[in-house]
Amino acid sequence: MDTFLDHINSPADLKKLSVHQLPALAKELRTFIIDIVATKEGHLGASLGVVELTIALHYTFNTPEDQLIWDVGHQAYGHKILTGRKEIFETNRQLNGISGFPKREESSYDAFGTGHSSTSISAVLGMALAAQIQGKREQQHIAVIGDASIASGMAFEGLNHLGVTDANVLIVLNDNAIGIDPSVGALKKYLTNVKKRVAKDENIFECLNLNYSGPIDGHDLQALITELNQLKSVPGPKLLHVITTKGKGLQKAEENQVVYHAPGKFDKNTGELIPKAMKPGPPKYQDVFGHTLVELANDNEKIVGITPAMPTGSSLKYMMEKIPDRAFDVGIAEQHAVTMAAGMATQGLVPFCNVYSTFLQRAYDQLIHDVALQNLPVIFCLDRAGIVGQDGPTHHGVFDIAYLRCIPNLIICAPMNEIQLRNIMYTAQLGLQKPIAIRYPRGKGRLEHWKRPMVKMEIGTSFELKKGNKIALLSTGPVGNTITDIIEEIDSKDMIGHYNFPFVKPLDQKRLAHLLASYEHIITIEDGSSIGGFGSAVVEFANENDITKNIKIFGVPDEFIPHGTVEELYKLAGIDKQTIKEYLAYIT
Amino acid sequence: MDTFLDHINSPADLKKLSVHQLPALAKELRTFIIDIVATKEGHLGASLGVVELTIALHYTFNTPEDQLIWDVGHQAYGHKILTGRKEIFETNRQLNGISGFPKREESSYDAFGTGHSSTSISAVLGMALAAQIQGKREQQHIAVIGDASIASGMAFEGLNHLGVTDANVLIVLNDNAIGIDPSVGALKKYLTNVKKRVAKDENIFECLNLNYSGPIDGHDLQALITELNQLKSVPGPKLLHVITTKGKGLQKAEENQVVYHAPGKFDKNTGELIPKAMKPGPPKYQDVFGHTLVELANDNEKIVGITPAMPTGSSLKYMMEKIPDRAFDVGIAEQHAVTMAAGMATQGLVPFCNVYSTFLQRAYDQLIHDVALQNLPVIFCLDRAGIVGQDGPTHHGVFDIAYLRCIPNLIICAPMNEIQLRNIMYTAQLGLQKPIAIRYPRGKGRLEHWKRPMVKMEIGTSFELKKGNKIALLSTGPVGNTITDIIEEIDSKDMIGHYNFPFVKPLDQKRLAHLLASYEHIITIEDGSSIGGFGSAVVEFANENDITKNIKIFGVPDEFIPHGTVEELYKLAGIDKQTIKEYLAYIT
Repeated sequence: MDTFLDHINSPADLKKLSVHQLPALAKELRTFIIDIVATKEGHLGASLGVVELTIALHYTFNTPEDQLIWDVGHQAYGHKILTGRKEIFETNRQLNGISGFPKREESSYDAFGTGHSSTSISAVLGMALAAQIQGKREQQHIAVIGDASIASGMAFEGLNHLGVTDANVLIVLNDNAIGIDPSVGALKKYLTNVKKRVAKDENIFECLNLNYSGPIDGHDLQALITELNQLKSVPGPKLLHVITTKGKGLQKAEENQVVYHAPGKFDKNTGELIPKAMKPGPPKYQDVFGHTLVELANDNEKIVGITPAMPTGSSLKYMMEKIPDRAFDVGIAEQHAVTMAAGMATQGLVPFCNVYSTFLQRAYDQLIHDVALQNLPVIFCLDRAGIVGQDGPTHHGVFDIAYLRCIPNLIICAPMNEIQLRNIMYTAQLGLQKPIAIRYPRGKGRLEHWKRPMVKMEIGTSFELKKGNKIALLSTGPVGNTITDIIEEIDSKDMIGHYNFPFVKPLDQKRLAHLLASYEHIITIEDGSSIGGFGSAVVEFANENDITKNIKIFGVPDEFIPHGTVEELYKLAGIDKQTIKEYLAYIT
Repeated sequence: MDTFLDHINSPADLKKLSVHQLPALAKELRTFIIDIVATKEGHLGASLGVVELTIALHYTFNTPEDQLIWDVGHQAYGHKILTGRKEIFETNRQLNGISGFPKREESSYDAFGTGHSSTSISAVLGMALAAQIQGKREQQHIAVIGDASIASGMAFEGLNHLGVTDANVLIVLNDNAIGIDPSVGALKKYLTNVKKRVAKDENIFECLNLNYSGPIDGHDLQALITELNQLKSVPGPKLLHVITTKGKGLQKAEENQVVYHAPGKFDKNTGELIPKAMKPGPPKYQDVFGHTLVELANDNEKIVGITPAMPTGSSLKYMMEKIPDRAFDVGIAEQHAVTMAAGMATQGLVPFCNVYSTFLQRAYDQLIHDVALQNLPVIFCLDRAGIVGQDGPTHHGVFDIAYLRCIPNLIICAPMNEIQLRNIMYTAQLGLQKPIAIRYPRGKGRLEHWKRPMVKMEIGTSFELKKGNKIALLSTGPVGNTITDIIEEIDSKDMIGHYNFPFVKPLDQKRLAHLLASYEHIITIEDGSSIGGFGSAVVEFANENDITKNIKIFGVPDEFIPHGTVEELYKLAGIDKQTIKEYLAYIT
């Protein structure tokens, strides 16, 4: 039997249904999402939570003429399915498939690409002001933003401007009291009071001069459509407060919202997770960080841990559970996280500030102005450095070496494996008198027996992993393991030396000078931007020291890398095993 | 006759006075600041506005044990004078003199270095949490923050966290309704209502779970001291709303708060500005930008202008006066400014987003994630690029080339003079289909007759300014003019070729290849970080193209450059005329 969803390839088709048919469609849409995510993986809970809201928005507004922005964007699966991407939805997050986030290139319904949080208010206000300037009086502008994302500074900046315009903007506050982890902060507390009807009369959004309505039940299609229709005729900026349940419609996802944010494969009927074929193997870098931090913090009472909204993703949760007084989730607030860490460092604490590489871009100024300029010994643990895979170009952490290298006082370290990560964490908390950034990738390490006693590393040192007689491969970070594998596999082993440079800054100049003098070919390898990165540092060093030797740099090229598996993307970027092997074959 | 101020060399001395003697001290302190700033220049209005607050804070609290942070920091002159720097205050902003901002190295009373706005809440919260962890129950933590700065996203992030802690923090909101230019935004509107007593019952800060008190008169010493003493015994986070007048006590400064923010030299009795010996000369780059934008926007109705709180400093004010519907001051909100520009660009507008180079660090993620990744043709005009002089290390715009160069899709242009600035602005608004960053320095240009008809520039082009036969000098930006002067002055002219590269990205590869092949020596010059900058790009190019020629890079070294005159700092950085001349003499 045909479903309603079978016949919907655009919002125009949706509008053919009557309001009382929509709850059935919502059920079908939910099932469709569950069925595909159960086997293809991806983000789940957020999209399930906004099924009714998605239907109501496309039912009420005139998309794509009206501009609709999904903040963060991992909740936009329903939106994609209803706007012509149903048939290809199973390619979600695959190389050459559709993106897991709204993407302008992909569809005219994706008004603005998202991925990082809290951008939607600024973007939609820009569109609405453009409509005013261009005399498009009928155009509507809607941003859907969660309660965790609206608490980020950037969103506040947008609201603060919005409130003094007469721009035709509707902010839908999708309040489910959770981001990836549960929301935190005073605004969340306030919103809870609003929902309990114990907040006092004046509303915080009204203080910011916005027309506030709600809270309403975000799973009640009739109520949503009535309210949205009514708001369509209200001119100027307005905010609708909608209450939803993350994971709605799949019991397990409602019950365990953190796990079901992006659960991996699961049984589509029961929601039961399908355990990965777990051979005992190397741990995730995240867990090495998380457990090692607890180990260190048990011994060193000056250590504090800070995460901007990623306790689960970064594994800071272990310290939050074990030593709650010294571990802080500050919400989606990278700027605050970094400067608060600086403040703590002035008082003699030893802050481990864990930020995803891509999100440290949000706190670049704080890193320069508050930490490095004052030479405060904050320890940055940059998670998800390098290519991250299916989350794609919004999330790859490939610029960090380049944007960090120009900052005075800052040490930059990319450990090759779990043991080096532990050792540099151990070394950093002993006291470096300087800030340090330690970058490591998403996912599994290399070593099963990683929990070794920690030893102090000399800052700026490097390691000879293998001597050679013609070609020196200089690697930084875990991509060095690929080089080790390559050397294992090829015949011309003897020619090839392999040198691990955990420190991008300061460089091991003595070693470098020696290698440049003694090898015929020098090759550098890193999983970051080849402009301004580790290879570039080596080239700068050679140039400065009047060494005339060309250096082959393997790094991420000057383009945005799409989404796909890490393996596929390494190949695309030209830093995969095969490409390097071919190059070696060519010069040997 | 001795004054009270004569006897005050620390807050301990201050505490010897009775409360009723303090108004006289306030008067003396004001006079002291006026007398010195009148001849030595510097920031004026902000410090005059907080004279009573400064006295009250040091009178009430136990600094430096209690931690006191001045947000932005240009209002801390009174603080410096009362905390042991009275005798050296006349060295303010001079090389080797005291800094115009709080600086940790300078005094234990400067709890946290400031310069960029809105960092104080995060820093002070970090300190207060550190006190909790370390059992310092008596320690007080105070941040003084203006109404313009508290409206920035980062401050909101701090407040949002603060409100759910029981940290012992007092935020003093110094509300004078102005930053450098008048405050804007919904929060400002709200605060105005609070002051008029027309805001409704619940207070926005109470919504964020802070203990709110005020507003009180910030020039009433008795009221301030009573209130501060009372708040000392209130545990947990609290906010005191204080109303002050920027420029208080100097009539002209009160009447014209924008001009007297940093007025240059003036008559200390009348406040009358002392006109600079004005020979008609080249304009400021800022005015070239401002007037050219109006000229272009008159012809191209798609052009919009955006500034985060710097209409006067950036000269966007000209467009705001002439074409107010298309020119926006969004307040201290760089993140919002950049993403709003991206939103506008999606609708076919041509946004000129003017941000100081050092402040673009605040919107680095938005530049990558919202603009470059979506390849939206936003035109960034990066004001105050390079070394800025007396504002010092918090404000030098020396990292931009390095942090921009790794971003795919982005064009980077550093015009050599006013005409190139105009031409690239003209070219950009014709439509590049890509984003561009145009960087230019603070202060005067080079050309008196700059208002020439604009011509289109070829993206990625370079110019041969002079042929030579041995040494090629490759310059980017206005530092090229120094090279022109040097060549004029030396004997070995014939040897030296000079090439202007307005485009750091894309590089003029054809020209570069030719120069590398035909000159014996290659020298690059820029007023930015020598790590990862223009010189580095040239070295990368040579390396990539198997050219074995060493390149001498003149750029800002890997250290934070202090405050001083631009000339002094160029010398310190080793990119001054004399240093380059000596190098040329050495190799010729």
